[in-house]
Amino acid sequence: MGSKIRSYVFLTSTECIVLVCMTCLFLNVNCQTENAGMSNVISERKAEEDHRQDSADLLIFIMLLTLTILTIWLFKHRRFRFLHETGLAMIYGVLVGVILRFGVHGQQDLNNVTLSCAMNSSPATILVNVSGHFYEYTLKGEVKDSDGEDVPDAEMLKKVTFDPEIFFNILLPPIIFYAGYSLKRRHFFRNLGSILSYAFVGTAISCMVIGAVLYGCVAFMKAVGQIQGDFFFTDCLFFGAIISATDPVTVLAIFNELKVDVDLYALLFGESVLNDAVAIVLSSSIVAYQPAGDNSHTFDGSAMLKSIGVFLVVFSGSFSLGVVTGVMTSLVTKFTKLRDFPLLETALFFLMSWSTFLLAEACGFTGVVAVLFCGMTQAHYTYNNLSAESKDRTKQLFELLNFLAENFIFSYMGLTLFTFQYHVFNPLFILGAFIAVFVGRAANIYPLSFLLNLGRKNKIGSNFQHVMMFSGLRGAMAFALAIRDTATYARRMMFSSTLLIVFFTVWLCGGGTTPMLSFMHIRVGVDSDQDNTAAGVDGGERRGVRHEGAWPFRMWHSFDHKYLKPFLTHSGPPLTTTLPACCGPLARCLTTSQAYQGGGDVHDEDSELIGSEGASSPMYTDISTVSQSSSFNNLHGPTVPSG
Amino acid sequence: MGSKIRSYVFLTSTECIVLVCMTCLFLNVNCQTENAGMSNVISERKAEEDHRQDSADLLIFIMLLTLTILTIWLFKHRRFRFLHETGLAMIYGVLVGVILRFGVHGQQDLNNVTLSCAMNSSPATILVNVSGHFYEYTLKGEVKDSDGEDVPDAEMLKKVTFDPEIFFNILLPPIIFYAGYSLKRRHFFRNLGSILSYAFVGTAISCMVIGAVLYGCVAFMKAVGQIQGDFFFTDCLFFGAIISATDPVTVLAIFNELKVDVDLYALLFGESVLNDAVAIVLSSSIVAYQPAGDNSHTFDGSAMLKSIGVFLVVFSGSFSLGVVTGVMTSLVTKFTKLRDFPLLETALFFLMSWSTFLLAEACGFTGVVAVLFCGMTQAHYTYNNLSAESKDRTKQLFELLNFLAENFIFSYMGLTLFTFQYHVFNPLFILGAFIAVFVGRAANIYPLSFLLNLGRKNKIGSNFQHVMMFSGLRGAMAFALAIRDTATYARRMMFSSTLLIVFFTVWLCGGGTTPMLSFMHIRVGVDSDQDNTAAGVDGGERRGVRHEGAWPFRMWHSFDHKYLKPFLTHSGPPLTTTLPACCGPLARCLTTSQAYQGGGDVHDEDSELIGSEGASSPMYTDISTVSQSSSFNNLHGPTVPSG
Repeated sequence: MGSKIRSYVFLTSTECIVLVCMTCLFLNVNCQTENAGMSNVISERKAEEDHRQDSADLLIFIMLLTLTILTIWLFKHRRFRFLHETGLAMIYGVLVGVILRFGVHGQQDLNNVTLSCAMNSSPATILVNVSGHFYEYTLKGEVKDSDGEDVPDAEMLKKVTFDPEIFFNILLPPIIFYAGYSLKRRHFFRNLGSILSYAFVGTAISCMVIGAVLYGCVAFMKAVGQIQGDFFFTDCLFFGAIISATDPVTVLAIFNELKVDVDLYALLFGESVLNDAVAIVLSSSIVAYQPAGDNSHTFDGSAMLKSIGVFLVVFSGSFSLGVVTGVMTSLVTKFTKLRDFPLLETALFFLMSWSTFLLAEACGFTGVVAVLFCGMTQAHYTYNNLSAESKDRTKQLFELLNFLAENFIFSYMGLTLFTFQYHVFNPLFILGAFIAVFVGRAANIYPLSFLLNLGRKNKIGSNFQHVMMFSGLRGAMAFALAIRDTATYARRMMFSSTLLIVFFTVWLCGGGTTPMLSFMHIRVGVDSDQDNTAAGVDGGERRGVRHEGAWPFRMWHSFDHKYLKPFLTHSGPPLTTTLPACCGPLARCLTTSQAYQGGGDVHDEDSELIGSEGASSPMYTDISTVSQSSSFNNLHGPTVPSG
Repeated sequence: MGSKIRSYVFLTSTECIVLVCMTCLFLNVNCQTENAGMSNVISERKAEEDHRQDSADLLIFIMLLTLTILTIWLFKHRRFRFLHETGLAMIYGVLVGVILRFGVHGQQDLNNVTLSCAMNSSPATILVNVSGHFYEYTLKGEVKDSDGEDVPDAEMLKKVTFDPEIFFNILLPPIIFYAGYSLKRRHFFRNLGSILSYAFVGTAISCMVIGAVLYGCVAFMKAVGQIQGDFFFTDCLFFGAIISATDPVTVLAIFNELKVDVDLYALLFGESVLNDAVAIVLSSSIVAYQPAGDNSHTFDGSAMLKSIGVFLVVFSGSFSLGVVTGVMTSLVTKFTKLRDFPLLETALFFLMSWSTFLLAEACGFTGVVAVLFCGMTQAHYTYNNLSAESKDRTKQLFELLNFLAENFIFSYMGLTLFTFQYHVFNPLFILGAFIAVFVGRAANIYPLSFLLNLGRKNKIGSNFQHVMMFSGLRGAMAFALAIRDTATYARRMMFSSTLLIVFFTVWLCGGGTTPMLSFMHIRVGVDSDQDNTAAGVDGGERRGVRHEGAWPFRMWHSFDHKYLKPFLTHSGPPLTTTLPACCGPLARCLTTSQAYQGGGDVHDEDSELIGSEGASSPMYTDISTVSQSSSFNNLHGPTVPSG
């Protein structure tokens, strides 16, 4: 007893020391940032200074993430579960944002020189002739803040503001890929119809409803003179599109931990994964065919049709690209003996998955969407061909990338609350946005659930619907879409409102998930492998799940099992048994020896359960059930037992 | 028999198909690149176009790497060992470079506009007033190619030329960190004196000798009118510094595979790891105190002293930073129970290691050097505190990063041979450089070995010396240093020569390692754990290695074992037994329960063998000994047994 107390106290003091040290180091870095900013900038040393400044800025984020990790560990260690790591990352971000905003004063960059010249357009590159030497300058952008408003410490704050495209090109892809790669595919496919309805129809409804409510709000604001500048209906629709992307992170981490009903989990996770894709394509198609000029306050019919056309082309193009690269990877891993060299295999897997993104971007499709479907294909097919070590390696690699990217985004979100220079906090608009989001979510979930229940055998209970309504958190995707363009007054107002909505939903809805679940009498502690017997509220009707589902699902499952799996992987029945006799030689050619040996469903089953437990946020898994013992180590699936 | 042949043939055809497909896809991407370049550039869409172009360019490299991986696998599969993967990556790079150079014709970017203005300096930012709108332009650099030379397709070729700083900020750090993290520390510390001599004294000698030989060569060239522009002695010294960094990759992969004598391995690996650090600091200190202006053809004494001062400050600063962050990580991992959550632990490890780099860069030290020593500290201390899963995860993560970065650099090297626009291939200079490199290497190895042998108990045999002479490959670091500055005529000539030296040494010396070893009668197939008994040529004197070595090594080992290890890790004897009695309370505070339980040397020994087998290029390990069986999977140390 005494020893326990001592170790408790000791640990706490160590923890404190560690946290305090990190904080000091962090502040130190900050001060240094300041000094670097204060030092005399000589023209030749500018690049070096910039580089040092960039390093210091990035260091701020690394320190933030390190702090977050340590605090997460502390929370987990103490079983404190009301604040998810992403919420925590945001809080730290906000704190640092406050420090940067009010504590650090950099100097203005007075080296700007204004040249006047008579050009019709702004070229991408200009050459400046300085007494015989030619210097090349590249276009950075139009200077937006031309209304003479004096922004203090603009240079310093601008420094910690990244190019928004970094989110789309570096941070989102691993998150989305991991979502696809770790999807519980069995439950996903079983609820495919409902998930597709929520993700496509639901998001479209949500987008429209939010747009309409907001347009009303804006009209009212214009009437009372509360708004300046242009604000078109397309802007409202755009806001509807970006804010309709729900983020599963916080809720699903808790669901995983509490082992909530698998169908509810599948519905929420599937919806949020797919509606990210829908939102991104939807918003870009709205932007692409946004009528230019001031005369068009409405979104006319032909533009609408064009938007839908763009949406379909981009979505299906991205989808196909993702699937094609996934299939190619599975073929390469099937027909080469690359599995003898896990490092090569993992590298290939990583490169092929990355190339999906680049290929889609190079073709003008949406990389993030392609990556999502690539991840699903990789998990469904390629994963079966990988060696045991590569299975672990790929899972762990993308888990780490996902973790880092996610926490980075949420820290950054916190930071922007104070460091972003062009915030437009309009109370009326923010209120309108909150109402619109609430109404939009309701208009998505309840009517669709009613319609879906007409066709579903295991109904989506009203308590499920309330939880889905409540769990419509907004997160990384909404933020990334909102920050992408903050050029106009309307967009800035949207960005600020999005930020607040994300904060509000992540902290409040995220923290309230556990009480909500118990309030709604959702059964927890359900083992996902036992779901055939009885689980959830309408469990009675659930027997024989495999043969349940709508006919498209059954057809797909049978086709996949008989032809695709055997063709693309070593698992499933050999093609020689499933293909008609006339295709004999071809079938023999495409069937590897493993397929004959391994045969049947064993492998297959295994593959469908990839990342089944520890999937979306494995760190929480089992904490509630494993309890006080020290056996936390093996949370991450079948790896080496520690110690 | 028949089935074996069939499967053989089948595999070959599959392989062919895969390779052909990849090539087609690759060419396809290329064509697309071209189209993207040809399309009409509208000013507003420029950013989007650029992004697509960037994606396509990056895709070229990803495809190149994928191709390389598949071919490497083929080579390994067929036991073809004369060409290392890096050599292969270079060949593919050269091929693609040829295609880009002669096959693809992009259009010139005609959007450049020249403004003339009377300024004394070139400001970092200028604002251009284009009919009322202000556009911000940032300084890209002085336009160097003012001699009117018309370079065809400059735009297209410029596109695939990355900012050289990418090498220093993204690609080199993981390579160097991994080198430090996977160092065989036992053998390294045993040979520390010799390694430090080769790395510091040897590299300095090599730098001087190369500089001197080359200066003679340049003087001759100036006399015969073969050279235009300035070429100072400092330039020659600079070339000496950049070309003195040897690259262990190819040779050590083969050494690992053949299980060459561990001391020879340690000498070569240790030297090449440390001389990277030395070269980078040496070259930057030469540049920092290079006398400006035309009148100083010699490198005067005070500048020399200043250079040495800069060298010492930067090197020791980087060293301390690396060690300090490593120690901090080990303290954090020791005193928190972070090991319960491998994901958090791995993330923390990764972030702390990265922060070393950023911290060093932000302080004006050299990030790459800091990262090297951080890696060594992490391996020596932190590694002991990690959970078994995190040990695997960190090793695998950095192994993958190292693999990707290395192959990327070598592909890129191949590519630059044809796509770099400012090559200056001067036959006389190249000949001089080759001779200088040869002489410099000889002046490093032979005299130093002679001196070291005076003090060493186990002498460095003459066959060892010849192998060390022969294994002085130049690689990634020399290239990265050379491409960093290609502004002047002299630097361009150096860059082109460096490229050729790298190609020559990697292909010829890399490929010739196996014949060289057998020609020199170096014993192969030595198990590194049995080296106490007998190995190599002068094996007779090697008994009791642990207690051998110079007194600084023995003192360090004892201090490390008694105080540092117990303080920073869970291993080693508890501090309560090693510290004097007066420090009892402090010692109890700093000793965790694991230290009492685990105690002694077991853990410690384990930690010193981290990555011992599969370290520098684990994929080759055991191939020669494991032979034909299918048990290739477990090459990568203690991970999950596959299947």
